[in-house]
Amino acid sequence: MWQPSRSHRSIIKTDALIEGVHFTRDAMSAAEVGYRALAANLSDVAAKGARPVLMTIAFGISPETDEVWIRDFYRGMAALAESTGTAIAGGDLVRAPVITISITIIGEVRSTNCKLRSGARVGDVIAVTGPLGASRAGLAVALEHRDASALPQASRALAAFRTPTPRLREGRWLAASSNVHAMMDLSDGLSTDLARMARLSRCGAVVENVPIDPAAVEIAAAIGDDPIDYALNGGEDYELLAAIDARAFPYLAKRFAARFGKPLLRVGRFVSDEGVRIVDGGSERILESRGWDHLRRSPPGDANRLA
Amino acid sequence: MWQPSRSHRSIIKTDALIEGVHFTRDAMSAAEVGYRALAANLSDVAAKGARPVLMTIAFGISPETDEVWIRDFYRGMAALAESTGTAIAGGDLVRAPVITISITIIGEVRSTNCKLRSGARVGDVIAVTGPLGASRAGLAVALEHRDASALPQASRALAAFRTPTPRLREGRWLAASSNVHAMMDLSDGLSTDLARMARLSRCGAVVENVPIDPAAVEIAAAIGDDPIDYALNGGEDYELLAAIDARAFPYLAKRFAARFGKPLLRVGRFVSDEGVRIVDGGSERILESRGWDHLRRSPPGDANRLA
Repeated sequence: MWQPSRSHRSIIKTDALIEGVHFTRDAMSAAEVGYRALAANLSDVAAKGARPVLMTIAFGISPETDEVWIRDFYRGMAALAESTGTAIAGGDLVRAPVITISITIIGEVRSTNCKLRSGARVGDVIAVTGPLGASRAGLAVALEHRDASALPQASRALAAFRTPTPRLREGRWLAASSNVHAMMDLSDGLSTDLARMARLSRCGAVVENVPIDPAAVEIAAAIGDDPIDYALNGGEDYELLAAIDARAFPYLAKRFAARFGKPLLRVGRFVSDEGVRIVDGGSERILESRGWDHLRRSPPGDANRLA
Repeated sequence: MWQPSRSHRSIIKTDALIEGVHFTRDAMSAAEVGYRALAANLSDVAAKGARPVLMTIAFGISPETDEVWIRDFYRGMAALAESTGTAIAGGDLVRAPVITISITIIGEVRSTNCKLRSGARVGDVIAVTGPLGASRAGLAVALEHRDASALPQASRALAAFRTPTPRLREGRWLAASSNVHAMMDLSDGLSTDLARMARLSRCGAVVENVPIDPAAVEIAAAIGDDPIDYALNGGEDYELLAAIDARAFPYLAKRFAARFGKPLLRVGRFVSDEGVRIVDGGSERILESRGWDHLRRSPPGDANRLA
């Protein structure tokens, strides 16, 4: 039982993770699975400009799950809950054929600050809170190319994949500006999530610059993959995607850099023509949504891909 | 986004249901699975004396789940949500090896009304809001003894099993009385749930009268089962179990009957000696907890038992 804030509105977010669909035990430790399950949901809360208040977890444990795994899972989740001020308010523990995790978070936000995905306007700058593709590079190192773990950027990539940071402070800060017209988190990949924001906002988008994380550049090059593909389609970077008034953007970006010690990255602009295009060698081409679709039976490209 | 009531506290309840553990598709229709998933959670809300406000659902669909099943499931759930004033505020849809359902409900209750399971006092009357065992009888008809479906009480039993009524009005009414010291819902069976309430309240309990539903009497007799076993250990009746001040009970029971057109049933009394006993032929014997334990690998008695 809790007393909600009288000056804020409440939001609720529910995410489900299924073993074998969204994670496997060989790619990360129990504590990392616990951390990541909560981080994905907190990222959603961040994109609303909200502050997390409390959470519940419905936890299905499979017959072969031992108590050590459960305890480590809980420890990883509880550490992130504590560091983000999220109270664990209960849940349900049941038997299941594979590990199933469903986390629900209650957050609070001033009603004037809450951002939707559908608010982007023609002319707005497309911005992201950090470079992309490191999580996909970490997946490559963790599962497909373990020999790449000796590369200098491997630990950065693995950390991005296993313990991504939900951008809660950045989300609240951006949400407080009326010049930020729309916001969402990048869970499924820029190509997919940007198309969603444009479609919901009834406009189109042009990608002029893809900010690629140095870990994605190095690891993709080492194993013969395309780093731009990691950044556009890899997903799970959990950076925030925002639509920002073009005239306000330079000043907002300057204040963002001063506040967070990192740049607010300009990716492109929202346009009136529907669809998403990318500037490639001086001309524009259609950018296909090749990120993660939760209901597609087999993920694109890589059958072992996690999301 | 919603504005919580300023005069109430909020509560949150999360329940998980796993196909093959908590339900099978041959025992009930998709609409009944949807109804029942929500009913079980609403029953928890009722036991707190709260009013449901909104819910989310994390829904894992297995490869063989077709769209008709999903639509019917949703229809069954949404009908109960609507009739109980519970807004469906979103959720998550993912792939899973079997159907997994996790429902989270937010409810509101006056802080002075919220009842815990731990508040029973020595001398309190043990009361339930309705007779027990009909759900277990319905399970028998649905799964084990389909020939019993011609019996006069079979449809009552099947309805109790497939579409139980969460006692929301009764819960709010009882919660408003300071003479009701503790409350919980009977999901796992009286023998198990009463033992929990007694243990949490640091007292014991004596069962003097087991109110058996007429459907349990008829169906158990027809198939050679013990109707008292259905009522004590069957579970899933979703009636409320309450600890009520003994001096106030007669008047409260009278008002309850006038308000709801059915009796508030006296089951026994809370005592200082720990453990749960039952009066049997003039003497008392220990009442074992033989209801459902969510983490036990195999349910007691019947391997096909649902819960």
